[in-house]
Amino acid sequence: MTPPLGFRFAATYAGIRKTAQDDLALMVSERPAAAAAVFTSNLVKAAPLTVSASYLAQSKGVARAIVANAGNANCATPNGVRVARATARAAAAALGVREREVLLASTGVIGVPLDERRIVDALPKLVAALAPEGFDAAARAILTTDTIPKTASAEVRLQGGTVRIAGMAKGAGMIHPLMATMLSFLFTDADLRPAELKPMLAAAVERSFNRISVDGDTSTNDTVYLIANGASGVRPLSKERARVEEALLQVAEQLAVAIVRDGEGARKLLTIAVEGASSDRAAATLARAIANSPLVKTALAGADPNWGRILSAAGNSGVAFDPAKVDLDWNGVRVCRRGTAADFSEDEVKRSLEERESVLRFAIRGKGKGRARFWTCDLTEEYIRINASYRT
Amino acid sequence: MTPPLGFRFAATYAGIRKTAQDDLALMVSERPAAAAAVFTSNLVKAAPLTVSASYLAQSKGVARAIVANAGNANCATPNGVRVARATARAAAAALGVREREVLLASTGVIGVPLDERRIVDALPKLVAALAPEGFDAAARAILTTDTIPKTASAEVRLQGGTVRIAGMAKGAGMIHPLMATMLSFLFTDADLRPAELKPMLAAAVERSFNRISVDGDTSTNDTVYLIANGASGVRPLSKERARVEEALLQVAEQLAVAIVRDGEGARKLLTIAVEGASSDRAAATLARAIANSPLVKTALAGADPNWGRILSAAGNSGVAFDPAKVDLDWNGVRVCRRGTAADFSEDEVKRSLEERESVLRFAIRGKGKGRARFWTCDLTEEYIRINASYRT
Repeated sequence: MTPPLGFRFAATYAGIRKTAQDDLALMVSERPAAAAAVFTSNLVKAAPLTVSASYLAQSKGVARAIVANAGNANCATPNGVRVARATARAAAAALGVREREVLLASTGVIGVPLDERRIVDALPKLVAALAPEGFDAAARAILTTDTIPKTASAEVRLQGGTVRIAGMAKGAGMIHPLMATMLSFLFTDADLRPAELKPMLAAAVERSFNRISVDGDTSTNDTVYLIANGASGVRPLSKERARVEEALLQVAEQLAVAIVRDGEGARKLLTIAVEGASSDRAAATLARAIANSPLVKTALAGADPNWGRILSAAGNSGVAFDPAKVDLDWNGVRVCRRGTAADFSEDEVKRSLEERESVLRFAIRGKGKGRARFWTCDLTEEYIRINASYRT
Repeated sequence: MTPPLGFRFAATYAGIRKTAQDDLALMVSERPAAAAAVFTSNLVKAAPLTVSASYLAQSKGVARAIVANAGNANCATPNGVRVARATARAAAAALGVREREVLLASTGVIGVPLDERRIVDALPKLVAALAPEGFDAAARAILTTDTIPKTASAEVRLQGGTVRIAGMAKGAGMIHPLMATMLSFLFTDADLRPAELKPMLAAAVERSFNRISVDGDTSTNDTVYLIANGASGVRPLSKERARVEEALLQVAEQLAVAIVRDGEGARKLLTIAVEGASSDRAAATLARAIANSPLVKTALAGADPNWGRILSAAGNSGVAFDPAKVDLDWNGVRVCRRGTAADFSEDEVKRSLEERESVLRFAIRGKGKGRARFWTCDLTEEYIRINASYRT
C-alpha cells in the first residue's frame, strides 16, 4: 500500500516480546504535523497514554513521530512514566525533533516493567530503516493475538489536488465499544490544523472503533492517533471537508471491522443494524447491548436463529422501547414481527447463519429516526482457549 | 429437607420440555400467606411476571400458591398473558383459592407459545400429590441447564418458638446481578405481614441474587418469591427481626452461590471481596465489573494469576478510585501492592487457582468503609458448547 506523502515507517524486533517477531514500530512525518488522539475510557490508563496526552497539550497538537511497541503494555508498573518519557526522549534525539512531538503507544502484558533499553538500543536501526514502504512492516509489528495485519486507505480528489488517508490497527481481544485494547494510527497528507483534526477524529472513532465489540472488555491502553502533515500541499476547502471526513470514517470503519473479523477465536462477523430508535445514540446503545451479550454471540457461533436472546439483550440496554413494536430480520429473513415469532423457515435461517458474515436488523416500528450500525463476532471455544493461556 | 410448616409441594412431567423430566411444580400454603416478589430488571418481562405483579397488587400481598414451569419461558408470544391467566385460574379452581392468590413463574425457551392445556391437564394430578415431602421434587422440576437442584434452609429460635426458612432456586446461565434467568422461591412459617416482607426480601436479594454473575446476561423471566404463612404461630418481636432477616439472607446467599457453582460450564467458584471503597454500593459496582469481565473469568479458567486484567476490569466499572492505592490478594497471597506487582511466587498462586474455590481480595487503601462480596465462576469452553446449542 502507498501511504500518504511525507510519512516514513520502520519496524524491528527489539526483544520486548518472547517470540522473535517485530515488536517495535517507528512512524515519522517528515515535517511537523497536526495531531489528535483518542484514548481509552478506562480509569486505569497506561503510562504511554498519560505521557502522550501531556505532550499533545504542551505542543498544542503538533507531532512528528509515533513510537509503538507490542509485548508489554507499560501499564501498572512503578516506572511506567519514566520509561515512556525516556522512550520519547531517545526517539526525539535520534530524529532531531522535540520530545513533546513524539507520541507513544504500547500493547501487551500489564504489570510487568518495560525495559526502556530494548527500545533505546533499537532506535538507531529503526531510524536508518525509515521508508514509506515500511508501512506494512509497522502494521505487523503492533499485533499481539491478531492473526492478520489490518490496514486501510482512501484517496479523495479535491479542487486543489488529491489527499490520501491510510491507517493501521491492531486488536483482537479485550475489544469493546468506548475503546478497547486496540491501537490505530491514521495518517493523512491533507493540510489540516490541530483544531480541525480533533473533532474529525472524535466523530470517526464514535462511528467506527466505538461501534465494535469482541468481548466487552475495555483496555488500559487503547489509543487512536490521527496525524495530518499537509505534504500533499492541498488544504481542503470548507465545502470539501465533509468528503475528507467521510473518507476518514471509511478508513476507520474498515479497520474497526477488520478487528472484529479477526476477533479472538471468531469465525463469523455480525453486523447489527438498529433503526427506529428515538435517537442515534439510543440506537447505538441498543446495538451495543445486543453485541455484548454472550448468549447472542454463542447463538451466532451455533448458527441458532435465537431471536429471543436478542430481544432479551435489548431489554437489558437501559433504552426504553416497546417490545411489541420490534421486528427482527436475520440475513434478510423476518424472524420476529411485533415482538413475537414470525412464520419463517428455521432451516433456511440456520444455513445463512453458517456463513462467515451475517446481518441482524433490529427495527422498531413507529416514528423514531435513530439508527446505528455495530459490529461483533461469535463467541467460540477458541476464545476461551486463547484467553485462558495468553497473558495480557 | 423438612420445609417450613404449612407448605405442600408437588411436581410432574407435563410435556412442556422435550425430555421426560419433571417440568411443572405446584407449591401451596395451607393458609393465606403474606407474599413478596422481586422481578427482572429487564425491560422485556415475560407474561408470568407481569400477571403475577398485578395479582400481588390486587391481593395486597397475599398468596396461596406458586405454579412454576420449566421448558418454556412464556415470553414474547402473542398469547402469553392469556396463557398465564388461564394457568392461575385453573390452579385456583383446583385448590379452591382465588385467582389472584396464585403466583406464576416460567423458565425456558423465549418466543415459542406455551400450551396451557399441558398445565391445566396436569393440575389435578399435582394437587392430589401435594405433600411437605414434595419440596425436593419441586426444586428439581424447575431446573433447565442446571446440573444439580439447589435448596437451602435455616431455623431461627425466637422467644415464641422456632421459625423455619427454606428455599429453592434454579439458574445456571444468563445469570447476572440485577436479577438473571433464575427463579427462587423462599418459604417461611414465620408470622410476617406483607408490608414487612417486601423490604426483607429486597434487602436479601440485593446481597445474594444481585451479587452473582455467570455470563452477564439478565433474563426476561427472573423471579424471586418469598411466602410467609405464619404456620409456626410465631410472630418475631421487633428486636428479633434482624435475626430472621439474617437467616433469610443466609438461605438466599447459599442459593445464589449454588447457582454460580453450577454455572454453565463452570469448574470454579470465585468469591470477590472488595473493601475500602467509598460506599457499599461503589464496592458492589467494582466487584460486579470484575465478576463480569470475560478476561478475568478466562484467566480463572486457566489458573492464571493475571491481576492486570482485574485492575483493568475495575477501571471500567465507572467507580472512581486511585489505581495506585489498590492491593490485590489471590487466595491470601498479595499479588499487587499499590497498583503494581508485588513479589510473589507465581507457581504458588497458580496452584491455588487450580482449586475449585478461590477468593480475590480487592482492597483500596485509605479511609473508605465500603465493602461488598460478589460471586462469579470461570468461563470455560463448556459454556460455549452449552450455549451454542441450547435454545433459551
